[in-house]
Amino acid sequence: MTRKDLFRKILEKKSYLCVGLDTDIKRVPKHLLKYDDPVLEFNKQIIEATHDLCVGYKPNLAFYESLGPKGWITLEKTLELIPEGHFTIADAKRGDIGNTSNMYARAFFESMNFDSVTIAPYMGEDSVKPFLGFDGKWVILLALTSNPGSADFQRTLQENDEPLFEKVMHKATTWGSEEEIMFVVGATHSEDFKRIRAIAPDHFLLVPGVGKQGGDLQTLSRLGMNDHCGLLVNSSRGIIYAGGDSLDFAEKAREAALKVQQEMAVLLEERFF
Amino acid sequence: MTRKDLFRKILEKKSYLCVGLDTDIKRVPKHLLKYDDPVLEFNKQIIEATHDLCVGYKPNLAFYESLGPKGWITLEKTLELIPEGHFTIADAKRGDIGNTSNMYARAFFESMNFDSVTIAPYMGEDSVKPFLGFDGKWVILLALTSNPGSADFQRTLQENDEPLFEKVMHKATTWGSEEEIMFVVGATHSEDFKRIRAIAPDHFLLVPGVGKQGGDLQTLSRLGMNDHCGLLVNSSRGIIYAGGDSLDFAEKAREAALKVQQEMAVLLEERFF
Repeated sequence: MTRKDLFRKILEKKSYLCVGLDTDIKRVPKHLLKYDDPVLEFNKQIIEATHDLCVGYKPNLAFYESLGPKGWITLEKTLELIPEGHFTIADAKRGDIGNTSNMYARAFFESMNFDSVTIAPYMGEDSVKPFLGFDGKWVILLALTSNPGSADFQRTLQENDEPLFEKVMHKATTWGSEEEIMFVVGATHSEDFKRIRAIAPDHFLLVPGVGKQGGDLQTLSRLGMNDHCGLLVNSSRGIIYAGGDSLDFAEKAREAALKVQQEMAVLLEERFF
Repeated sequence: MTRKDLFRKILEKKSYLCVGLDTDIKRVPKHLLKYDDPVLEFNKQIIEATHDLCVGYKPNLAFYESLGPKGWITLEKTLELIPEGHFTIADAKRGDIGNTSNMYARAFFESMNFDSVTIAPYMGEDSVKPFLGFDGKWVILLALTSNPGSADFQRTLQENDEPLFEKVMHKATTWGSEEEIMFVVGATHSEDFKRIRAIAPDHFLLVPGVGKQGGDLQTLSRLGMNDHCGLLVNSSRGIIYAGGDSLDFAEKAREAALKVQQEMAVLLEERFF
């Protein structure tokens, strides 16, 4: 998917919501446990209930890997259930030496058909570049993550008083363009969005951390939006577990997604309509 | 496996070699392609030919993931083929927010029964800690990797003139002890081993980058060895592909492993016998 196509989808749906499919078998409502593959059934109902309200889905691979080989089958089948036109993110946080990153790129872009994969920058340029150059595919590089541990290294000041995450962004903008690289910036860091937009004015940002982690949608949107919207805001637990163990969990997930989408519609209208 | 047990194994086998099972279906000898699972058959023959010469095996997960769900079955079956008493490393380079790292820990330590998993430190403490506290299990944290990209961020000087990888090591030594954390330090950085040993005198180091990547075993061993040996030196391509496409690839792999093990025996004898 191109940057332009993604922007078009956002305007069409009045949404820049990405639903995180962090489906934990231990949190799937009990009445689904009768199915052969309760995680898949859960994902199916969540996707059916939310697909018109979001522009993307982000399965977090840890939740599928923890189920062993059958988790990977569930992941593949989940991908098949996502209606065409949605941006798909393999939230994998991979990154390894060149020949290994090549294998991961094959895994996510060829064996499976994800539009994008999240990558950790610690190992530098040759760990990231193998993911670039796949037509219509994206690298989503960790910059400033939403968790408390982001303070440990990402904010460490470098020689020139630049925090590490800004150095990562500066370097990465030389590895590829805004047509193939996005950055992860946690919603919990809205005070940083201005500086981030100074470094990467045109890039899309994948923003986790609204909902359960406490980030504020309005603030981050007003600070982070660019002329292509430039934001994909992810919510996982706040949507998919909104209904808890109830029979109508999918309906509850829809209500939670609708609430976010309606806020987004207002924010998009302010700017683009 | 405890640090003491690992050291005992090393002395018993006169080896601190770890064989990297980076098995690429595209590089498996042609005569194995008749098998249902050529990667598994390749691993089986490599393990049979090398297990008495090494103390550990490190499957690189990218190579299995790139095969889809059946790659995970191959990985599980490969684990079953590794004789008891070998230290097993899931070379996964994972790391994510706490609840997700929890799921990865379940995947590698419970669903599968790896002794250790490699972790990327970029996301900080709460991304690493969920992997600690599993009895006899290890976190192997990336510090200074063997690839060219290690210069991009890992060597960046921080405020106090400390390179990032040293900050990572300093911080990590406060998260857990040398009984549960190891560090990845590339063999291509032997000039750094002295400073690394000043920060982590008692930790094991997992050292990739001998062989194809050009690191020198003697130099790094003399600089890096501690009173528990403290080194696991990994070789992947230099061993498993030593025989290329030949019928006797396993024998050739054994010869390559034997050459390394014999060098190691001399180095261990210098120090411990």
